[in-house]
Amino acid sequence: MKRLFILNGPNLNLLGHREPEIYGADTLADVQAACEAAASAGGYEVSFHQSNAEHELIDWIQQARTDAAGIIINPAAYSHTSVAILDALNACPCPVIEVHISNIHRRESFRHHSFISARADAVIAGCGTQGYVFAVNRLISLLAAG
Amino acid sequence: MKRLFILNGPNLNLLGHREPEIYGADTLADVQAACEAAASAGGYEVSFHQSNAEHELIDWIQQARTDAAGIIINPAAYSHTSVAILDALNACPCPVIEVHISNIHRRESFRHHSFISARADAVIAGCGTQGYVFAVNRLISLLAAG
Amino acid sequence: MKRLFILNGPNLNLLGHREPEIYGADTLADVQAACEAAASAGGYEVSFHQSNAEHELIDWIQQARTDAAGIIINPAAYSHTSVAILDALNACPCPVIEVHISNIHRRESFRHHSFISARADAVIAGCGTQGYVFAVNRLISLLAAG
Amino acid sequence: MKRLFILNGPNLNLLGHREPEIYGADTLADVQAACEAAASAGGYEVSFHQSNAEHELIDWIQQARTDAAGIIINPAAYSHTSVAILDALNACPCPVIEVHISNIHRRESFRHHSFISARADAVIAGCGTQGYVFAVNRLISLLAAG
Amino acid sequence: MKRLFILNGPNLNLLGHREPEIYGADTLADVQAACEAAASAGGYEVSFHQSNAEHELIDWIQQARTDAAGIIINPAAYSHTSVAILDALNACPCPVIEVHISNIHRRESFRHHSFISARADAVIAGCGTQGYVFAVNRLISLLAAG
Amino acid sequence: MKRLFILNGPNLNLLGHREPEIYGADTLADVQAACEAAASAGGYEVSFHQSNAEHELIDWIQQARTDAAGIIINPAAYSHTSVAILDALNACPCPVIEVHISNIHRRESFRHHSFISARADAVIAGCGTQGYVFAVNRLISLLAAG
Amino acid sequence: MKRLFILNGPNLNLLGHREPEIYGADTLADVQAACEAAASAGGYEVSFHQSNAEHELIDWIQQARTDAAGIIINPAAYSHTSVAILDALNACPCPVIEVHISNIHRRESFRHHSFISARADAVIAGCGTQGYVFAVNRLISLLAAG
Amino acid sequence: MKRLFILNGPNLNLLGHREPEIYGADTLADVQAACEAAASAGGYEVSFHQSNAEHELIDWIQQARTDAAGIIINPAAYSHTSVAILDALNACPCPVIEVHISNIHRRESFRHHSFISARADAVIAGCGTQGYVFAVNRLISLLAAG
Amino acid sequence: MKRLFILNGPNLNLLGHREPEIYGADTLADVQAACEAAASAGGYEVSFHQSNAEHELIDWIQQARTDAAGIIINPAAYSHTSVAILDALNACPCPVIEVHISNIHRRESFRHHSFISARADAVIAGCGTQGYVFAVNRLISLLAAG
Amino acid sequence: MKRLFILNGPNLNLLGHREPEIYGADTLADVQAACEAAASAGGYEVSFHQSNAEHELIDWIQQARTDAAGIIINPAAYSHTSVAILDALNACPCPVIEVHISNIHRRESFRHHSFISARADAVIAGCGTQGYVFAVNRLISLLAAG
Amino acid sequence: MKRLFILNGPNLNLLGHREPEIYGADTLADVQAACEAAASAGGYEVSFHQSNAEHELIDWIQQARTDAAGIIINPAAYSHTSVAILDALNACPCPVIEVHISNIHRRESFRHHSFISARADAVIAGCGTQGYVFAVNRLISLLAAG
Amino acid sequence: MKRLFILNGPNLNLLGHREPEIYGADTLADVQAACEAAASAGGYEVSFHQSNAEHELIDWIQQARTDAAGIIINPAAYSHTSVAILDALNACPCPVIEVHISNIHRRESFRHHSFISARADAVIAGCGTQGYVFAVNRLISLLAAG
Repeated sequence: MKRLFILNGPNLNLLGHREPEIYGADTLADVQAACEAAASAGGYEVSFHQSNAEHELIDWIQQARTDAAGIIINPAAYSHTSVAILDALNACPCPVIEVHISNIHRRESFRHHSFISARADAVIAGCGTQGYVFAVNRLISLLAAG
Repeated sequence: MKRLFILNGPNLNLLGHREPEIYGADTLADVQAACEAAASAGGYEVSFHQSNAEHELIDWIQQARTDAAGIIINPAAYSHTSVAILDALNACPCPVIEVHISNIHRRESFRHHSFISARADAVIAGCGTQGYVFAVNRLISLLAAG
Repeated sequence: MKRLFILNGPNLNLLGHREPEIYGADTLADVQAACEAAASAGGYEVSFHQSNAEHELIDWIQQARTDAAGIIINPAAYSHTSVAILDALNACPCPVIEVHISNIHRRESFRHHSFISARADAVIAGCGTQGYVFAVNRLISLLAAG
Repeated sequence: MKRLFILNGPNLNLLGHREPEIYGADTLADVQAACEAAASAGGYEVSFHQSNAEHELIDWIQQARTDAAGIIINPAAYSHTSVAILDALNACPCPVIEVHISNIHRRESFRHHSFISARADAVIAGCGTQGYVFAVNRLISLLAAG
Repeated sequence: MKRLFILNGPNLNLLGHREPEIYGADTLADVQAACEAAASAGGYEVSFHQSNAEHELIDWIQQARTDAAGIIINPAAYSHTSVAILDALNACPCPVIEVHISNIHRRESFRHHSFISARADAVIAGCGTQGYVFAVNRLISLLAAG
Repeated sequence: MKRLFILNGPNLNLLGHREPEIYGADTLADVQAACEAAASAGGYEVSFHQSNAEHELIDWIQQARTDAAGIIINPAAYSHTSVAILDALNACPCPVIEVHISNIHRRESFRHHSFISARADAVIAGCGTQGYVFAVNRLISLLAAG
Repeated sequence: MKRLFILNGPNLNLLGHREPEIYGADTLADVQAACEAAASAGGYEVSFHQSNAEHELIDWIQQARTDAAGIIINPAAYSHTSVAILDALNACPCPVIEVHISNIHRRESFRHHSFISARADAVIAGCGTQGYVFAVNRLISLLAAG
Repeated sequence: MKRLFILNGPNLNLLGHREPEIYGADTLADVQAACEAAASAGGYEVSFHQSNAEHELIDWIQQARTDAAGIIINPAAYSHTSVAILDALNACPCPVIEVHISNIHRRESFRHHSFISARADAVIAGCGTQGYVFAVNRLISLLAAG
Repeated sequence: MKRLFILNGPNLNLLGHREPEIYGADTLADVQAACEAAASAGGYEVSFHQSNAEHELIDWIQQARTDAAGIIINPAAYSHTSVAILDALNACPCPVIEVHISNIHRRESFRHHSFISARADAVIAGCGTQGYVFAVNRLISLLAAG
Repeated sequence: MKRLFILNGPNLNLLGHREPEIYGADTLADVQAACEAAASAGGYEVSFHQSNAEHELIDWIQQARTDAAGIIINPAAYSHTSVAILDALNACPCPVIEVHISNIHRRESFRHHSFISARADAVIAGCGTQGYVFAVNRLISLLAAG
Repeated sequence: MKRLFILNGPNLNLLGHREPEIYGADTLADVQAACEAAASAGGYEVSFHQSNAEHELIDWIQQARTDAAGIIINPAAYSHTSVAILDALNACPCPVIEVHISNIHRRESFRHHSFISARADAVIAGCGTQGYVFAVNRLISLLAAG
Repeated sequence: MKRLFILNGPNLNLLGHREPEIYGADTLADVQAACEAAASAGGYEVSFHQSNAEHELIDWIQQARTDAAGIIINPAAYSHTSVAILDALNACPCPVIEVHISNIHRRESFRHHSFISARADAVIAGCGTQGYVFAVNRLISLLAAG
């Protein structure tokens, strides 16, 4: 299992097009390319997905139980509302890194709480799309440490 | 772009059949017809949708970014729980009107807060299905004013 | 009783002069004219009042118990603080529509709660002064439906 | 100073006409007559007032500082919102009895708190209009005890 | 059934001995005598009880379901903590008056809420021991009105 | 130890007589008979008790520490207020099932929280008196599973 | 209509594989078999579904309006977040039983509140998969009672 | 416009007579004289008003929009309850200073929040009547700075 | 009056048998012996009681009004729920020390608040059964200081 | 003792350099000079200090117990978090004036509460650096009044 | 390691001089002497410190990790605000006793919560300076028990 | 200015020695070395500091206003309590990255809120000491982007 799952929640398909003053100019394809490069350097492949549907994210997380060495997830809006994604992650034995492109603690108060953070091993927020690369590197370090 | 998107959330497909003492006897088809008439009078066409799925509503809103001059949305139960729909609307440059058939402020307290209202230009609640027509007229006025 | 009471709360006498970026350029006289036109089309006369005094609003509402077929009220700041106006409306048998020119849900949190909404049959917020016309039309529809 | 002030807040002029299932069939004139009888039996005269205006209630309370041996007040809706009436009562040296015709603790939660109760010597709620007579008798007892 | 139950909660056996600046100098025997006099004037007998035990109060209330025309209860400290007494009263068809010797709204905040008030027909607080007599008179009036 | 303790809290002695629209027509004797039948089918005897007194319930729970294989408790009103019963149950090694005849989550908000649920292995609410039989069967299953 | 709908929310497809110390070793197929046996004994057939998608659960509930005599639902994580499922159930005339395999009141505080409980006729939590069988039996009893 | 409006809320007409241990011995006439002296030294005239009526305060504030270079307001009890006065001040372009004679932060907790402070340029509390003179001087400084 | 009352609340009769990892291995008899030794050294006798019944604790506290020089109370679970015990203690003129065997601030949050602490002169928590001896010594010191 | 202590909390050493749109262009040296001038006019000397360290502020306040006739303190950020400074001030017999350069009630909500205000005789906020001069004058007035 | 660290927080250097009606007449030197006597009786030496600086307290606690068999700390005002002191204590393997001279539960509500209590093995409040001696004795007992 | 400030809050001097199951085995010297390596690769020097004193952290942040191109801060316990550090950072024009070694969202609830996050450009939590290296790289990227 030398595969990382990188999952992206609702509206992240608009990345680079939506509110660039908050989210920057990189597209999700740019993010995928950067992640693949970083993962490849550590000997890992990447399964990279985005969906606006909560259940698709759950399905991928359930699949990751057997197919992934680690999960990176940017749950976007579902961070704040989805217990179901939390439960799916709770059923995964592998490490989980939560990424937010913007610093959610500087935005509306309902964005300050993430259900996912209660399960995630690490949370990286506000590093822009570079946060994904940090997450890949962190997973590689964690997995190397065993 | 002389098109308005009119989007309806979960359980509104039951309109006219469910709890008529709260929601009245009009069906969603009746609402669509009334909206089309009002829009047509202002020179607009209507794309009218209903879904029980949060992600379908998000998909339509994303499509509206390029295809619609304005959005009318009755988010129904998702008003109170969906940050993801709010985020999709935040990515739209066009005006947005939120409609509720019943007066949500006279119902259970968890219906008093709508995430969508933080983005909507206007909120019309308790006008029955007539509220949709008011929303169409308001959009036409706003778009005429530029 | 072919008469509608349209009541306006504190500071609405400044309409058109105060913070036009929030409230628009129409004056209260413009609103009155628009309401009279809409009511007249439905066969109704209008009693149109504004006061900065809570008790005058209460007096008019009490008068409406016998003299009005319906009430439209923009309670302005008293929406958020006046149980006395709510009680006066509770003593009225006729339909009541609450109007706010701006979308109060996008403003300070203390403006999100209105005591009046617990009594109003409908709430229209953020439609500018056009909201009054919608309210007149809604009253006419309700009264026609009996 | 053998005079009692009996002050009635907003909408109590409708007593007997408004929501009799809550407030009963007695009118405010009936209440006044009953109070005068009870007071007279104890050797007191009564100044009996009602107003929908907060400031008139304040004015009467200020007048009571010099002209009354005791105050009975049914602040109605202002119970829950008026710090100004509380302050006026705080400036009075005489005993104060607060009366509510209905049991406010069985109604909406915003009616459970009364600013006035923090100053009142006694609170009588839910005894109907008979509560006023109890209040007169209580004042007479208190004043007799010195 | 020409009998009234008058029930007194914990520590009221100390009345007249405990904190007289709050509760006055009357003893519970004085209260009983005053109640009997007032009841007798209306043609009623009185069953007068005090207990420090919640369950004894419940037992008496259950007995009152068949043996009493009305209940007066000063639940004392149990006002603020006993759902069980509330439930017992909920099972009684007769009218219930809640009495507090002091004005509980001027004391610690945990004394401001009474579970019993949600069931009581009336609440009399701060009239000293005279409040019991008012309660007897109110019950007699209510029962006379049928 | 082939004995189950079935404990009933305050006012349940009125079962079948009190508010039948909430609690149904079965009496506590009916419940006892149904429990004994179900227990007997599994080879268990039943000790069935009811008390309005918190301390009697505590005493029985303490006795159950040595005499019972399992406890079924309908704490009634004490569910919401008794830490002492919780502590007694915390001192018991055997399984505990909490039963409520009505669905407490559809009633007043102060009935939504039960201190006992923090200790109970299972909670059955709203199944009427049949809930006791389910609880007996659940205990038998748990004890059979060891 | 001799058919029961048994609906299972997100991640319950993992039952028996996920966190067995919380959820036990039974799989969802085992649950289905046990439910069918219990239903069959009462003369009912079962429609048994699981989905990770909120909208599929809504669709099945809407279908149950015409096709089911009763609904058993384990909403899993959606218990705590879905007003839309509540609304769908509100539109159903048949009885509804809510089942949770674990005792949700012993877990994180955000699992203590279920929107569904406001509609459910009964709630069974912590009886493991046996809770489904109790629910089937309860529905059969309710339907027999008419 | 070399005129300052100095507005005083409810019960301040009693200044010097009411609770001198809190408010001191100066009367409102003394305050007016001190303000006029201070203003005159800076080349300003003073319009000095007091009212127990919220609407009169609003009327004066509206008048100040055209007639005053600055406003000093001691809203007294209305500080804590009046959104309407806040709205009137929001419509004024001139600087606003809020004055409280006592230190409201040392009194009851409901006096700690002032709606007016959200608009005021400065808040001076607890300086006794000298606070008015500081406010006059501050206004003069602000206006001199332009 | 050279007598100290030492009162113990519900479930403390199980001391030494219940959850020894929290409460230690000493029995209540051990505690009594240690207290008597300490009291005797200071010239005091001890009345040592335990009850699961709130009312018995109240009765003993009332008795202490005349018979005790000081009170030591471990209210156990009643700390968190009993206003009635607080009221009984409020009626006692003698010093009161509250003892908890465990450190209640490290346990569930509902154990962090004690009604009794508002009356107690001192609170000793987490010193095991030694806390009782400290309390005896503290009482002796206080009484010696007069 | 003709000496005033003027104490300044963390980051005030940056005054004039940091966020001038909030705090203005005056430096702390300017403030010191203005205070000395005002104090000197009243016959007082000034000890003027600033520290980023909470303990240094406490040390100076303790020193003020014997060396100062009055204290002016701008606690800056420590206003909102320091009980220790409050305690030090509580130990001072002399008058205390709290100064904030900006109006803290118009900033983030965590700046609305000041522990220090519970002790301060007066609070002056939003008068810029002129507030210090007002505070000096107020102290002089208070001390003159004795 | 036969050494106990006894640490005292801000303003305790004023002990005996500040508010003697709350804190008594003993000075910190008296406390130190009493502690040394008690410790010496148990074969322990004492390191006794006081500081107004949070960081000095942290430094001493860190030093105690290697140099002390136990810690007694009166964190004074830092009890309520210092997570940093809690963290330092969390890094210590030895037992910790928290002492407060007054009963903090009878004072302002912000003094009811202590961060330190979440780590302390015991909390002694309201025993005056004698509480320190009890703490020394408790430490000796704990260390003797191993 | 090719210099980064890396600041570490209270108790981080114990890193590697304290609770390694939470914080890992790396010492602060290890962290410094890793940061210097990463910074050096980007052409930056590092000023690396640790203090248990809030004011020293403030002093370094103030120094960073002129001497640093960016700040990395692990405020440790001060994250949750220090408005003063927030204010110091608010006065800095350079980018700021907040680092936590553990995932603070999985720990006690009082660790979930950080005052610093309201100012930080990014927050990295739970990446162990590797989080510092990510922060260095993020600063370098930000500064390169200008």
